[in-house]
Amino acid sequence: MKVWLDCDPGHDDALAILLALHTPGIELVGLSTVHGNAHAHLTLANAGRLLHAFAAPAHLKPHGGAPKPLLRTGRVDLEIHGLDGLGGVEGLPPADSSLTRPPDPLHAVEGLRAVLASAQPDEISVVTTGPMTNFALFASMYPELVPKVKQLVFMGGGVGVGNRSAVAEYNILCDPEAAQIVLELPIPKVMIPLNVTHTAIFTTAHMERLNPTLTPLRHTLSTLLFFFAHAYRDVFGFLEGPPLHDALTIAYLVKPELFTGKRQHVDIELHGERTAGETVVDVWDYLKIDASWGRTGRNCFVTETLDVEGFFNLFFACVDACDQVSPLNQRASS
Amino acid sequence: MKVWLDCDPGHDDALAILLALHTPGIELVGLSTVHGNAHAHLTLANAGRLLHAFAAPAHLKPHGGAPKPLLRTGRVDLEIHGLDGLGGVEGLPPADSSLTRPPDPLHAVEGLRAVLASAQPDEISVVTTGPMTNFALFASMYPELVPKVKQLVFMGGGVGVGNRSAVAEYNILCDPEAAQIVLELPIPKVMIPLNVTHTAIFTTAHMERLNPTLTPLRHTLSTLLFFFAHAYRDVFGFLEGPPLHDALTIAYLVKPELFTGKRQHVDIELHGERTAGETVVDVWDYLKIDASWGRTGRNCFVTETLDVEGFFNLFFACVDACDQVSPLNQRASS
Amino acid sequence: MKVWLDCDPGHDDALAILLALHTPGIELVGLSTVHGNAHAHLTLANAGRLLHAFAAPAHLKPHGGAPKPLLRTGRVDLEIHGLDGLGGVEGLPPADSSLTRPPDPLHAVEGLRAVLASAQPDEISVVTTGPMTNFALFASMYPELVPKVKQLVFMGGGVGVGNRSAVAEYNILCDPEAAQIVLELPIPKVMIPLNVTHTAIFTTAHMERLNPTLTPLRHTLSTLLFFFAHAYRDVFGFLEGPPLHDALTIAYLVKPELFTGKRQHVDIELHGERTAGETVVDVWDYLKIDASWGRTGRNCFVTETLDVEGFFNLFFACVDACDQVSPLNQRASS
Amino acid sequence: MKVWLDCDPGHDDALAILLALHTPGIELVGLSTVHGNAHAHLTLANAGRLLHAFAAPAHLKPHGGAPKPLLRTGRVDLEIHGLDGLGGVEGLPPADSSLTRPPDPLHAVEGLRAVLASAQPDEISVVTTGPMTNFALFASMYPELVPKVKQLVFMGGGVGVGNRSAVAEYNILCDPEAAQIVLELPIPKVMIPLNVTHTAIFTTAHMERLNPTLTPLRHTLSTLLFFFAHAYRDVFGFLEGPPLHDALTIAYLVKPELFTGKRQHVDIELHGERTAGETVVDVWDYLKIDASWGRTGRNCFVTETLDVEGFFNLFFACVDACDQVSPLNQRASS
Repeated sequence: MKVWLDCDPGHDDALAILLALHTPGIELVGLSTVHGNAHAHLTLANAGRLLHAFAAPAHLKPHGGAPKPLLRTGRVDLEIHGLDGLGGVEGLPPADSSLTRPPDPLHAVEGLRAVLASAQPDEISVVTTGPMTNFALFASMYPELVPKVKQLVFMGGGVGVGNRSAVAEYNILCDPEAAQIVLELPIPKVMIPLNVTHTAIFTTAHMERLNPTLTPLRHTLSTLLFFFAHAYRDVFGFLEGPPLHDALTIAYLVKPELFTGKRQHVDIELHGERTAGETVVDVWDYLKIDASWGRTGRNCFVTETLDVEGFFNLFFACVDACDQVSPLNQRASS
Repeated sequence: MKVWLDCDPGHDDALAILLALHTPGIELVGLSTVHGNAHAHLTLANAGRLLHAFAAPAHLKPHGGAPKPLLRTGRVDLEIHGLDGLGGVEGLPPADSSLTRPPDPLHAVEGLRAVLASAQPDEISVVTTGPMTNFALFASMYPELVPKVKQLVFMGGGVGVGNRSAVAEYNILCDPEAAQIVLELPIPKVMIPLNVTHTAIFTTAHMERLNPTLTPLRHTLSTLLFFFAHAYRDVFGFLEGPPLHDALTIAYLVKPELFTGKRQHVDIELHGERTAGETVVDVWDYLKIDASWGRTGRNCFVTETLDVEGFFNLFFACVDACDQVSPLNQRASS
Repeated sequence: MKVWLDCDPGHDDALAILLALHTPGIELVGLSTVHGNAHAHLTLANAGRLLHAFAAPAHLKPHGGAPKPLLRTGRVDLEIHGLDGLGGVEGLPPADSSLTRPPDPLHAVEGLRAVLASAQPDEISVVTTGPMTNFALFASMYPELVPKVKQLVFMGGGVGVGNRSAVAEYNILCDPEAAQIVLELPIPKVMIPLNVTHTAIFTTAHMERLNPTLTPLRHTLSTLLFFFAHAYRDVFGFLEGPPLHDALTIAYLVKPELFTGKRQHVDIELHGERTAGETVVDVWDYLKIDASWGRTGRNCFVTETLDVEGFFNLFFACVDACDQVSPLNQRASS
Repeated sequence: MKVWLDCDPGHDDALAILLALHTPGIELVGLSTVHGNAHAHLTLANAGRLLHAFAAPAHLKPHGGAPKPLLRTGRVDLEIHGLDGLGGVEGLPPADSSLTRPPDPLHAVEGLRAVLASAQPDEISVVTTGPMTNFALFASMYPELVPKVKQLVFMGGGVGVGNRSAVAEYNILCDPEAAQIVLELPIPKVMIPLNVTHTAIFTTAHMERLNPTLTPLRHTLSTLLFFFAHAYRDVFGFLEGPPLHDALTIAYLVKPELFTGKRQHVDIELHGERTAGETVVDVWDYLKIDASWGRTGRNCFVTETLDVEGFFNLFFACVDACDQVSPLNQRASS
């Protein structure tokens, strides 16, 4: 399965990249970055640092994308992701290091266009783990290419729950207009909402299983998860550990059977005074429903539960796989 | 404790009236009706029918109130409450019967004004179990009397859950502007949301405990609950039984220890395209919080859990008490 | 013609009161006040001061009404009307004087109800020259009496022009929800917008015609107009003189032939970020039009031009008439 | 002066193209098209037909752009521009003719990017005469290039007047979100609103001056203006002739002295129920004003009057110039 990943690393985005590179059956054909967890120039640099650390194929270079939302004022989440988007993470090359994978000069939108233009229909899946500005711009620029996308899997939103406003989740809140543009596209969409991601908690038992002392890569991942755990404890009161939001998107691609869910109509509230950015899921089916994808139909598969153990097995298998090839380990052993 | 009850009977409103009349420690000093579950002339007539059946003191007459929301188009809920608001209920006098308590000629707002004008401060609690149009009109007409209200307890809203739109609860959805007017008033407010009322399920075990064969009153109540149970099963898929929403307000008045909850900031979304009428509860405390009641402070005590068994003990004690005095039983035994 | 006048004096409201009391053919059967140009307690007191000065019949007492808008935060217009709503006006009794007409204890809404309840259909015209909160409350409380109103003539709004926001006129801006409630009522409505009132300029030629030296009443009126002229010059750049907005409503009642206009659909924008309170007049007939009053029909007669000279002839005739009876003059001559 | 013209021909867009090609002092360095007056594939084809007819330099090919608005449902204006966007126009090559200038394969956004990337700062002026979707996409994709734009001149909006809703002008109404994105850009902007364009009426006297019998080009232009005149008469009641909206943008570029106006703050209403797409011009300066371009500053030069005779002199000079080189004339004479 060929995948384009659009992200804003970001701690949990980093884990999504890890999974996208080391899950058997997935070929990461492109990666782009966007504003969100940190400023766009930082998420772009972080992607380059992570591509190196996780031993991405040499031709994979991050495409920089939109530095701000379409209409709203940009925001970053220093409390959760630190000053540079990967706060507290040790062992990565610095942004200006020669090891860091340099950006591809093509804009994210143009990079995705090039891949899709030469792809077969239903060959490429797109995953977004940040605000959906890039994919909304792509769809506005090249709507004729949109139907070639096999599916869009996105981390974002919540059903009756938010995190960065009373009722809105951060990825959607950052660029609600982009999210609405995307939700109206005539392709299959899969939503991984907070309700599901909040069950994928990285606990102390998982930390022991990770065992930071084994390899430099595991040390790096443990520092990432340690920082993230503290942020979630301090900001949101998560005492068991942090939720690995973004990583679930990749798990869905290869193992949808780990999830339950159902197709529903989802809209983004764009005009509310208190509710802008809320994902309004038509749980009672009050909007007229038909079988087609469309404005009033069930336009999105909304996941509802996760096989947590199954997910973590996948996660640790990716760590194992990455351990074999990560230059972090090679440098350490040389 | 002196109580003014504003309601739109309505099956669960009927039970709130029952409790308001027969809970020890509560003196029902006035009752008014509003549009909502049924047209205003029907809710007014139903109140008169119920005041008779539940043996209300002779001086208690229902005050008719607003027949429509302030701004929105009026609505009724035929699916849940039947054609006349008390669908399926047997044993009540007809609306045009001489037994039915006739309306008080004073408008609901003027009736409440009269009571509050002659009351001591903190003497009167107000309960609303329907759309808040009447209390909003009262507060707009006589704001100088509002501070004399001890507290407002209302059934309405939900925290991340709705019932008659994707995200809005019916009472609030019917007149969101009225609800927002009320939420901004400088008095203590207690919200009994769907999250709590959906735990107060009247099960088949409760139906056995009610024992319809014992008295005519119990038969009447059983027909009420039977219709309500079927409506909730068919419309919302409640298989265990219907939730007794409105009755919880009276339980809160005398036994607040049956509930847990906390003070939070609550606003009504008035401007959303998909979310109008949503109760936006600031669960993450993103609005600036101070100790005072006010626009940005924690303006409402939001209940979170219910001691279900404690509530039903109260409920059945009221049925017992009413059994002693209900003219339904007297007629039957004569 | 029997008239109820609801106002917020206010300099131009004062002139509307003058005309309502001294225009042949008009019987002022009630007067109420509302928040708006100044705080509600000041507009109520000002009405009492003006009823004295303009020799209103002894039974006419002002009914106090709503002290704030239904939903919005209240506002006053100190720049235009001074600290007390009648800034700069000389010769009126002070608010606490025994000469000032005391308030009627009935709320404005209840006062209007009493008048309409005993009136014949089409006997009473209602005029509003301030925010429409009172009439909106009346219509929400007693919708069954609304059809007895012959017509509503209101000063407010503008067609493509505002004054206290980029696009909204002050009376409507103060309580847009109230205005929308009123516009949906099934009675004839006449709108006197800024486009018309801005042609009724009280010039220096008019000031000479007024001749302040003739009587104490004329002196009082000249101080009123002098203050108003300065306010309009300083705030809005009106160099020729101030517009006598509110007074036009009374002129319309007796001499509609002074105006041209046409029936159109008018709505108030309630949800705009920049446009709340704008009177949206469907000048191109894009809303479906039918002959009935209603949501999509032409619900309002919007005046477009004024016979300015005809209006000022009426105005000065009222000054002449008032001169004969004003206690200001009697005191001065005694 | 180097100019990029983004348009949706469209009758008046066609005249803007004519002026852009034949006004001395203007070098048209690029032309792109967008949805609006007709479907995007038609406006693209029409641009190709017009570039031929008006003898554009051979290297000029139209870049196709966005086929729909960012968020809103797309619309076309058949009543005004006919089935193909150039209804009634005779003498142009058909869309599928080899004479019609073929589209440039680069997207409008990428075409503009290429031009700006190699330009000097302040070298390129951008003109839009349709919905601003393309320029909004450009600014979202390549914000770093925006400051190189010397100025943006756009036909759109109105001050207190609309044409395709009660209060909104068509270009802005089609894509209000795009317009707001553009208005917030940190470059000089010049607005040519309906208030000004409605004074540029092409009268029967102008038709005589055009003299359709002189050349094939003049015949073509006369059929264009004849159709446009009838459309404006029938739809909007313009009896004197049609307004040449879009052509004024080019006139402004070379002869700004034909216009008066002033810098003001302009926003687009995005959230109103009745007013979406309205250009809200802060005529009373209620928004805080400072000298910088920005959200609260005076972000736009709003033109207010036009030297109509001066404009038409420019217009006819362009017709004269085009007559010398138009292949329409050459074909006819051969």
